[in-house]
Amino acid sequence: MKVRVFVTLKNGVLDPQGEAVGHALSALGFAGVNGVRQGKVIDLDLAGEDADAVRAEVTDMCEKLLANTVIENYEIELG
Amino acid sequence: MKVRVFVTLKNGVLDPQGEAVGHALSALGFAGVNGVRQGKVIDLDLAGEDADAVRAEVTDMCEKLLANTVIENYEIELG
Repeated sequence: MKVRVFVTLKNGVLDPQGEAVGHALSALGFAGVNGVRQGKVIDLDLAGEDADAVRAEVTDMCEKLLANTVIENYEIELG
Repeated sequence: MKVRVFVTLKNGVLDPQGEAVGHALSALGFAGVNGVRQGKVIDLDLAGEDADAVRAEVTDMCEKLLANTVIENYEIELG
């Protein structure tokens, strides 16, 4: 089963990478960019096919490795 | 308007970061991980509200800055 995990910085956590992208967009002439935040997307190809079991396993992966839950949020999308 | 852009490596392009995550998941005891690919997610907050115009602008941003279209694909999700 294909699973997509989004790992994004929590609100209030500084995001210099996102700010740099925002500045670069302005420098390229794109107006009206009010905010940019950059995160990670992790595409997993897992053996299991049971949605509930896969979701539980991926939640465990996020808590243990994929996200730093002090400063990052994660979302799991089964596909 | 909130826009989410996914930038992922094209198939066939080596992804050492994704491989490292895959090895780490195996080392943590997660079995059945057949593949891991890591990409970027960029959340934009843009001034425009017209979906077609925003999509065209974000496509332009991707081509010029956000993605390296030689090795990366991008997907745009208006939200």
